[in-house]
Amino acid sequence: MSGGAVGADLLARTAELINVASVSYHERAIADLIEARLRAGPGLVVDRVGDNVVARTNLGRDRRVLIGGHSDTVAPNGNAVARIDGDVVWGLGAADMKAALAVILELATTVVEPVVDVTWLVYAREEVRVADSGLRELFDARPDLLAADVALLGEPTGGAVEAGCQGVLRAVVTLTGTRAHTARPWMGVNAIHRLGPLLARVDAYQPRTPEIDGCRYRESLQAVAVGGGVAGNVVPDTAEVTLGYRFAPDRDIEVAEAALKEFLVPVMGDGDCFTVTERSPSALPGLGHPVLQGLIGDNRLEVRAKLGWTDVAFFAEQGIPAANYGPGDPTLAHTAQERVDAAAIESYRRTLEHLLTAC
Amino acid sequence: MSGGAVGADLLARTAELINVASVSYHERAIADLIEARLRAGPGLVVDRVGDNVVARTNLGRDRRVLIGGHSDTVAPNGNAVARIDGDVVWGLGAADMKAALAVILELATTVVEPVVDVTWLVYAREEVRVADSGLRELFDARPDLLAADVALLGEPTGGAVEAGCQGVLRAVVTLTGTRAHTARPWMGVNAIHRLGPLLARVDAYQPRTPEIDGCRYRESLQAVAVGGGVAGNVVPDTAEVTLGYRFAPDRDIEVAEAALKEFLVPVMGDGDCFTVTERSPSALPGLGHPVLQGLIGDNRLEVRAKLGWTDVAFFAEQGIPAANYGPGDPTLAHTAQERVDAAAIESYRRTLEHLLTAC
Repeated sequence: MSGGAVGADLLARTAELINVASVSYHERAIADLIEARLRAGPGLVVDRVGDNVVARTNLGRDRRVLIGGHSDTVAPNGNAVARIDGDVVWGLGAADMKAALAVILELATTVVEPVVDVTWLVYAREEVRVADSGLRELFDARPDLLAADVALLGEPTGGAVEAGCQGVLRAVVTLTGTRAHTARPWMGVNAIHRLGPLLARVDAYQPRTPEIDGCRYRESLQAVAVGGGVAGNVVPDTAEVTLGYRFAPDRDIEVAEAALKEFLVPVMGDGDCFTVTERSPSALPGLGHPVLQGLIGDNRLEVRAKLGWTDVAFFAEQGIPAANYGPGDPTLAHTAQERVDAAAIESYRRTLEHLLTAC
Repeated sequence: MSGGAVGADLLARTAELINVASVSYHERAIADLIEARLRAGPGLVVDRVGDNVVARTNLGRDRRVLIGGHSDTVAPNGNAVARIDGDVVWGLGAADMKAALAVILELATTVVEPVVDVTWLVYAREEVRVADSGLRELFDARPDLLAADVALLGEPTGGAVEAGCQGVLRAVVTLTGTRAHTARPWMGVNAIHRLGPLLARVDAYQPRTPEIDGCRYRESLQAVAVGGGVAGNVVPDTAEVTLGYRFAPDRDIEVAEAALKEFLVPVMGDGDCFTVTERSPSALPGLGHPVLQGLIGDNRLEVRAKLGWTDVAFFAEQGIPAANYGPGDPTLAHTAQERVDAAAIESYRRTLEHLLTAC
């Protein structure tokens, strides 16, 4: 069997999945298709929860590997219909992440005696707010279905392993003042003016860059929204700024929140408020796990720290080491130029097959 | 005729005017009443433009004095109905400025041979945005009706003369940046962070305090609104702040605008914008005018600089010296405690009568 032939076949299967529209919140049709394919797989116990599908082997192996990804896409960019051009398939979700799903469906139904137990996972609503995530729905409703020793999510990483992820803490800082007429501003305290020192301090923030499991993280602190004002002739008595703090996985949420509050002490005073509006935990890279070590070592994969937040954090929260690993250029995801080539898909297929059969 | 008796009569007349509801944009009834009273005055030529009323003597005097005020009030504060308690009348608009209107109606119809020509003016919509001002409507439609050598507006000043007024320049400063994902903020430029140095500079502004005609002005520069932000995970590429600059009457609008722009040079860069959203001219105190000198000197009135913006600026723009002078405590205007006492109304009446008869 030539790599080219396999690659061509996976291009066609990827194109087929692209052509099943699955914009977030409209994943029923693709979930039906995926469920049907997996139910045809020998030795798989298939569960469906909403538009999420889980298929598990139960071979009594010492180790269980979860391999998954999401079925939804962002809105089309004039690329709703797949197009195969040579050894490249173009179309909405080609990289993010219909190519990975095509490989998952193939391996789930053809590798009948894997050396590890496998949990195949396809879930809905990844491209939207975390509160709506199909993965969160599953962890809430059937956490037993997601039990595993290690997890791999097929987000496009260009074939590298993106390890762990930084957490996100978002907080609204409300500064207070005292209203006055702007003709007599000395009678009041201008809360918008008080943003000056706060923003200067945030801008001067020196990011921590810890190295964990050989991955270099880089934190960030950014003001992402600002607002305030009462009327054109009023010294405003309130102003608020929303800060986003991305923290490396050597910190948990509580430590991150305490550190951010501590950082802001010099620019906050009595009556000011600090209100956390989003808490997304970080995930340690967990690269010490033998399955990840094998995947990386056997295939000489590049390893990168994940600076953004991803669904691997759901697994890390449960103590399951997890990484993003998938075919396709992440910078093309969500663009009209989204595409993936046969070699990348085949490489993804081959490394996973090796993981399932050669341990 | 005792001062007490006159005062009591003016209290009743003020109460009568309070009881004609005249919240801004609903001044027709009170304009009808005022027009009818003035048409009954001997020797007056009365013109009506919308809800504005002008009544003029035409005695061929060397000098014409305009005495006026507005007929509207803010919304009631549970005080829509007048109440006389001893020598005090309480109610919506008592000080701002039904008491002054009661005096205007009395003097207009009883002082039949004033030593100066008089233009009595009652106009609508002062308590709202300048664009809707009845005085602006009159200046646009019939500037001839407002020709005068000097003008006195009966805003509550506690019996002091508030001379001239500071101008107002309002401008939106838009700072630009470059969008990026907040996980990689070094790829972008955070426009909200750029507000830090701008707000620090505005906060550190040292106000000019020029003395003009013996009046000490005090400028101010205040941020009155701020806004910005794209999304929780995006380094924002734009942020804006609205600045209000109140400038002393030794500066005109053009000088004020140039000065503000110059002040901001160190904190603005290419791609940033400065957009003026309001230009209200300043008014020189004009206290050198003999009528104002006489009013102040004959009655030993206190003189203060007006730091806020008032309608005297409309007259100053036409080269007519103008001042606010009226009965009642300005700090009680617009409150549920609004009131004015008989002595204050009578003092206003007596000083104006003196001005009209004793020159």
